[in-house]
Amino acid sequence: MPRLVMKFGGTSVANVERIRNVARHVKREVDAGYHVAVVVSAMSGKTNELVGWCKDAAPLYDTREYDTVVASGEQVTSGLLAIVLRSMGVPARSWQGWQIPILTDGAHGAARIQGIDGKNLADGFAKGEVAVISGFQGLNPESGRITTLGRGGSDTSAVAVAAAIGAERCDIYTDVDGVYTTDPRVVPEARRLPKVAFEEMLEMASLGAKVLQVRSVELAMVHRVRTFVRSSFEAPDAPQTDGNGNPPGTLICDEEEIVEQQTVTGIAFSRDETQITIRRVADKPGVAASVFGPLSDGSINVDMIVQNISEDGRHTDITFTVPSADYERAMDVLAKLKDKIGYVRVEGETNVAKVSVIGIGMRSHAGVAAQCFRSLAENGINIRAITTSEIKISVLIDAERVDEAVRALHAVYGLAG
Amino acid sequence: MPRLVMKFGGTSVANVERIRNVARHVKREVDAGYHVAVVVSAMSGKTNELVGWCKDAAPLYDTREYDTVVASGEQVTSGLLAIVLRSMGVPARSWQGWQIPILTDGAHGAARIQGIDGKNLADGFAKGEVAVISGFQGLNPESGRITTLGRGGSDTSAVAVAAAIGAERCDIYTDVDGVYTTDPRVVPEARRLPKVAFEEMLEMASLGAKVLQVRSVELAMVHRVRTFVRSSFEAPDAPQTDGNGNPPGTLICDEEEIVEQQTVTGIAFSRDETQITIRRVADKPGVAASVFGPLSDGSINVDMIVQNISEDGRHTDITFTVPSADYERAMDVLAKLKDKIGYVRVEGETNVAKVSVIGIGMRSHAGVAAQCFRSLAENGINIRAITTSEIKISVLIDAERVDEAVRALHAVYGLAG
Repeated sequence: MPRLVMKFGGTSVANVERIRNVARHVKREVDAGYHVAVVVSAMSGKTNELVGWCKDAAPLYDTREYDTVVASGEQVTSGLLAIVLRSMGVPARSWQGWQIPILTDGAHGAARIQGIDGKNLADGFAKGEVAVISGFQGLNPESGRITTLGRGGSDTSAVAVAAAIGAERCDIYTDVDGVYTTDPRVVPEARRLPKVAFEEMLEMASLGAKVLQVRSVELAMVHRVRTFVRSSFEAPDAPQTDGNGNPPGTLICDEEEIVEQQTVTGIAFSRDETQITIRRVADKPGVAASVFGPLSDGSINVDMIVQNISEDGRHTDITFTVPSADYERAMDVLAKLKDKIGYVRVEGETNVAKVSVIGIGMRSHAGVAAQCFRSLAENGINIRAITTSEIKISVLIDAERVDEAVRALHAVYGLAG
Repeated sequence: MPRLVMKFGGTSVANVERIRNVARHVKREVDAGYHVAVVVSAMSGKTNELVGWCKDAAPLYDTREYDTVVASGEQVTSGLLAIVLRSMGVPARSWQGWQIPILTDGAHGAARIQGIDGKNLADGFAKGEVAVISGFQGLNPESGRITTLGRGGSDTSAVAVAAAIGAERCDIYTDVDGVYTTDPRVVPEARRLPKVAFEEMLEMASLGAKVLQVRSVELAMVHRVRTFVRSSFEAPDAPQTDGNGNPPGTLICDEEEIVEQQTVTGIAFSRDETQITIRRVADKPGVAASVFGPLSDGSINVDMIVQNISEDGRHTDITFTVPSADYERAMDVLAKLKDKIGYVRVEGETNVAKVSVIGIGMRSHAGVAAQCFRSLAENGINIRAITTSEIKISVLIDAERVDEAVRALHAVYGLAG
């Protein structure tokens, strides 16, 4: 029998009534002939409450104990869902991270999955049992202690389980019904994409399309786990069709599976950017390292980096962006390094935003970037900096023009369909 | 270094502030030179909430899943206490039942401890670590699943851990400051007992002196674990003395340790009794079995049983008591057995109470029972039934006379001191 992973987040399991609704979704798939593993989060609000207690207990809490406390939320949900499923006549049992086990490294609070032994789950499937798995948690095999994967880690748990059991698909039930060409709040004509390639989704996820955790997309890409983002609000007995016999949603999959490849898939944007320019740095080997080394040591997340060829061959300007939250710290780090780096001055601009055009098809299409720059120019939007990758063009612009830019680009690439 | 177990119930760990107070108690004992294992319950109210969700999920919930859900309460408390202890500079780590492990049988919801491997805890002590243990929970080694010991099971966890690690003492912090000669709400002159023998405590616990779980006392008796009942309301820095250098409380210990043995230690009572009399049963072998077998099959807890020698040698009356909660069911069972047992009629009386005089010293003292009966007679209190054991005399009386009886007996045995 084919295997299926279904993942439900905190709002889907917020109380017993909603857990009952989740159970109906699960029963539908069991009745359709799947061996199902369900991955659940803590009831919404629970994790925040538990984290609050830890902080209250000690602002600098021990992360091993934090994991012990916080992992209890998923434990409750998995037990309750198993109870409900059994009461509906669906054989089921709950699995905690340490029972499967889901092995992780020892980075408590933000552990990474090292491996999942699928044997216990397979034994359960052989008995016709649904595996109800606590998301977000694992076991550090060296210490025998509970670890957690960091906030939103249940997506990652689901994809990792899907890889471990060779699932046909990993269904992520969430509060949006799929991945859109851009944020529909900015562009009402934004269209849900039936399919998105892993690489594209990775760019979208890291650019603030908050549908899936970045790490879960990475993992899905590495293990080729077909991941289907769909709405948790749909009735469990709603017809499972979007015209192609599939329920409405977005399938994140291998690009080979996407027949009608478009050049551009979506427009992502992030308002959470600031720009820093270092003026007249000595243009010599090692200067970039002398700037970005200390920033990295300070855990400052540098994104777009632009360095032009210098005019005089002796000095150059370096421009880069950091998230707004890191801006003050970055400026601090640079001020302290003035003598060492030997620049003239640092300029900061907090009122900027990044807009990105993403599409796996642009690898084989010329002119995509030119089209972007022309469109922005026609709208009188000034480009502060540009970076590109094989499947993405990002431009930094003034924050107040971001909606306009997104609308213009969405139109110029014909994304409204 | 000597080892000490400290157990704190739900009200002592109801919130982070109270957990901090518990940590101060622990630190005091660490500073005094003990290797400490702390056993904690769930925050008060938590277990009820979790049980409520299980019942809500399905009235006939799976008890394995129930255990998974409910055990999460203790997990949270143990993690939080470990965080607080570490923040106070006291090395500590939390231990869940499955980590130690505390092995139990597979009777989910009311599992019995089969064994505790003290090695992991000893390793922690060697590192100078306080062991913060989730009470109430264990591991079924056959299935690898979490079990719980039934309500109030944390007392039992504490005593079992004390036995496993060879603790000098098991301190139970509770909302009373010890065991009294009787309920002070009935007899204001009731006196706290400095020491009580295991056997006496067992009688008192099973008779409704709700200080300790019956099973924890049984376990303490079997393993000779000196168990000290003391108040959790006392300030952690209060002087640890009752005049003998001990903190105020009651030590439950071997009778050999009790130097000034009293004949009678306490007066226990229970209002939660009903009396059933079966009139004119055939006086022949097997008749008792024909009555009590079916009651036992119906999980009805029969307590005092009185059967007199019959007058005519052919018929007799059988009187016994059952808890109020079982009364209706017991009457039902008997009605259905009328033809099989062959009695004339069944009489029930719900308005009764049991009063017991308990004392290990009465084994070697004659006249204790006579004194009891005389005292009740002088107060015009009618005795409905009598049962005795080596260290206990129980009488069944009318419920409305119970306070009077307890006061009279408390006085006649000189328990006010």
